[in-house]
Amino acid sequence: MTIGDELLYGQVVDTNSAFMGQELAKIGLRVRQISSVSDRADEITTALDLARSRAQVVLMTGGLGPTKDDLTKHVLARYFGCELVLHEPTLEHVINLFKRFNRPMPESNKLQALVPASCQVLLNKGGTAPGMWFEHEGTVFVSMPGVPFEMKQLMIDEVLPRLQTRFQLRPIEHVVVMTAGLGESALAEKIADWEDALPANVKLAYLPSFGSVRLRLTGTDDGQPDLPGRMRALLPALRERIGAYIFAEEETTLEAAVGELLKARGLTVGTAESCTGGLVANRLTSVPGSSQYFMGSIVAYDNRIKTELLGVQPATLAAHGAVSEETAREMAEGARQRLGVDVAVATSGIAGPGGATPTKPVGTMCLAYADGQRTVSRQFTLDRGRALNIEYTTQAVLIMLRQLLAG
Amino acid sequence: MTIGDELLYGQVVDTNSAFMGQELAKIGLRVRQISSVSDRADEITTALDLARSRAQVVLMTGGLGPTKDDLTKHVLARYFGCELVLHEPTLEHVINLFKRFNRPMPESNKLQALVPASCQVLLNKGGTAPGMWFEHEGTVFVSMPGVPFEMKQLMIDEVLPRLQTRFQLRPIEHVVVMTAGLGESALAEKIADWEDALPANVKLAYLPSFGSVRLRLTGTDDGQPDLPGRMRALLPALRERIGAYIFAEEETTLEAAVGELLKARGLTVGTAESCTGGLVANRLTSVPGSSQYFMGSIVAYDNRIKTELLGVQPATLAAHGAVSEETAREMAEGARQRLGVDVAVATSGIAGPGGATPTKPVGTMCLAYADGQRTVSRQFTLDRGRALNIEYTTQAVLIMLRQLLAG
Repeated sequence: MTIGDELLYGQVVDTNSAFMGQELAKIGLRVRQISSVSDRADEITTALDLARSRAQVVLMTGGLGPTKDDLTKHVLARYFGCELVLHEPTLEHVINLFKRFNRPMPESNKLQALVPASCQVLLNKGGTAPGMWFEHEGTVFVSMPGVPFEMKQLMIDEVLPRLQTRFQLRPIEHVVVMTAGLGESALAEKIADWEDALPANVKLAYLPSFGSVRLRLTGTDDGQPDLPGRMRALLPALRERIGAYIFAEEETTLEAAVGELLKARGLTVGTAESCTGGLVANRLTSVPGSSQYFMGSIVAYDNRIKTELLGVQPATLAAHGAVSEETAREMAEGARQRLGVDVAVATSGIAGPGGATPTKPVGTMCLAYADGQRTVSRQFTLDRGRALNIEYTTQAVLIMLRQLLAG
Repeated sequence: MTIGDELLYGQVVDTNSAFMGQELAKIGLRVRQISSVSDRADEITTALDLARSRAQVVLMTGGLGPTKDDLTKHVLARYFGCELVLHEPTLEHVINLFKRFNRPMPESNKLQALVPASCQVLLNKGGTAPGMWFEHEGTVFVSMPGVPFEMKQLMIDEVLPRLQTRFQLRPIEHVVVMTAGLGESALAEKIADWEDALPANVKLAYLPSFGSVRLRLTGTDDGQPDLPGRMRALLPALRERIGAYIFAEEETTLEAAVGELLKARGLTVGTAESCTGGLVANRLTSVPGSSQYFMGSIVAYDNRIKTELLGVQPATLAAHGAVSEETAREMAEGARQRLGVDVAVATSGIAGPGGATPTKPVGTMCLAYADGQRTVSRQFTLDRGRALNIEYTTQAVLIMLRQLLAG
C-alpha cells in the first residue's frame, strides 16, 4: 500500500512498490495486490481492511511526514485502538540527525518521535520517520516512510529479515532470458510446444519492451530438490528454438550484452548517428566501464558534417539522399576510419514529424554496420512518433550490432 | 487498475497510473485509488467489483497481449456476460500493421481482433490490442493495452474526450510555469509571499525533476468569468521574483526552450561530449524541427578523439587532465570550429562508478560553453550513481546553454 495524493494525481511515479515486489519475491513472498490510496483517513482505513482480507502481510509506505497532510500514523493508532506515545530513542535519533546537518530542528519534527503504543519501532537510519511493525489478529502490518532510499534501507535492514523469521517461506525461483529481434507473438509461436511442456510449478511470462522481449520463468517450490538447477535445465530446449535471439540468460541490458561481446573479442566501437542524434552512443556509454571499448561518436545531423567529418561522398548524398542505405554504409565506414575503431554502426532516418518525401515517409530508417571485413545495412519504415522512432531505431541498430558481433 | 504479474513482482515499474492520474486531473476527474493486480481471473474480477464500488469510471491497462498469460479480455467478457466476437476493422488494422513492418503475421495475432460483444472498440493506432469501452450499470469501464505509448495515444485520442462528453466535469484550469536552475525549496522561499496571496480557488504544486521545477497552478471554477485570464494575471508578480529561472510559461521542455532561443537568434548549435556520451545531443534533437539549428556533435570518450577530432591540446590533457574546465573549454571551442556552428557546449566528467582520482572523485563534472565572443566553463561535483550523474550533467549543461543564450 502506497499512501499519498501525489501518487493519485500522477505527480509522482510509485517506484516503491516495484522495489518491494522484487525484494519480497526474492524471499518467497508473493505480492497479491498493490494499492495506492490518498492521504484520507477513511480511504486508508478501508484499504487496510481490504488488504488484511487478502494478505498475511501488509506493507505500507508514505504519509509519515511531519506536515498536516500526513495521517498514516494517526490512522494506524486509531485502527489498532491505541494511543500515540513518545519513543525516546527516535527522538534522540531525530535530534542527532538535525545536529549532523547542523540545522535548527523545527518543532514539528518532534512529532516524528510519536508512535502508536502497540507497534514495534524500526529505526530509520536515513530519516526522521521511524518504521513501524504491527501484529494484529495474525496479520503483520508494516509502515515505512515514502522516501525511496529510506524505505529501501528499512526493507533491507529490518523488514525482510523479520519477515523471513516470522514466516516459513517457500522459495520462489526466477530465471530470466533476454531476447531481442523477435516480437512477442512470433517468439510465443516458436516456443509454444516448449511452453506447453513446462512443469506445473513453472510459469512463463513475456515482458516485451521495444524490440526486445524478456522471458521470465517463475518456479514455485514443489518439494523436490534443486529447483534452480531444474529450471536452468529447461533452457537448452529453449535455445534450440530461439537461440539466435537470446542475448543473455540473466537480467541485463542489450547495451551491456554488446559490451561483453566487444570485451570478449577485444574490439573497440564507435557510432555515426543522424536521426538517433546520439542516443546509440548514450545507450552504449550507459554501461559502467564502457570506456574500455567505446571510443566516440560523430552525430552528423547536417549533411555538411556527414561529408566533412564522416567522409560521405557528396555524390552518394545527391544520388540516394541522406536517408538511404548507401549513405548509412558510408557513414559507418567513415566512422570506423575517423574514430579509429574496429566496429562502427550508423543510423540515418526521418524521425518526423516533418522531413518526409514522396518516396520516404516519416519513420523511414536506415542502419549500417561496418567492421572492416564487411559492411551490412538494412532499411525499415515504422512511425510511432518522433521520440519512439528515435528509440526504436536505436534499439534496432543495437540488435543489429549484437547479432553481427555474435554471429 | 493496472494488470500484470510483472508489476507485482516489481519487474516493471507502473508508470501508466501516474500518466492516467495526471491526464484525468487535467479534465477534472479525481483518481480515487490505483490498484495493480495479477494476471489471474479471480483477482481481476474481485478488483473490478471493488473498483466499481468506489468509482464511476474504472480505467484498466494490461493483459491484452496475444500470449497465454494475458487474460483481461476473457475476464471482461465473462464479467459483462457476453461472448468474444470478431471485430473486422481491428483485424484489418492488425493485418495492416504487420504489412507495414513487412513481417509475417503470427496466427495468434488474429485473436487480437476478438472483443467482448458489449464493448465499444477504441482503435489502437500504435498496436494490435484494441481499447475497449464498456458501460455497465452506470459505471464506465475502459480497458487499454499496458504498453505505455499505446495506452497514452488511446487516452489522448479516445478516452479523455469520451469521458469529457460522458460526464459533466467541473472545468479545471492549469497554468504551468517551467523553471530551471533553482531548487524546490529555494524557489519556494523566493515566492512564499506570492504563494500565500493566491486566491482560494487556485492551488500551487511544485513538480521538481532534476535541476528543474515545474510550477503548476490549478484553478477550480469559482463561478466568476475568465478563470484562465485571471490565472495568467498572477504571473507578472511571479516573474518579478524568479524571472531569471523561468524558461517557459507553458508545458514544454528545456531543450525545446533552447531551440526557440536559437531559432529566434538565428544561431546553430553543436556539442562535444565526453561523460554525457551523446545525451546532450539526444536531448537537443528530441525536439521536432531541431535540424534547423542543431548541426551535430562529437562524442569524444577517448582522449585520442578529443585531440584528433576536437583539437584539444595534448598539453592541456597532460597538465589538467581530461576532466577539467580547461579541457572542457577547448572541447567547446574545438566543436564550434570542427562542426562549424555558432554555439557549442561541452561536457567532461567522471560518471563512475570507476575512474575516480585522488583529486577528482566520482561525480566531478566540467561544463563549457563557447560562442566565439566568450567561452564560459564551470565545475561541480555530485554523485548519485552513473545514470543520474549523466542525466544531471546533461540537464546542467542545457541550463547553462539556455541562460547564456537568454542573458
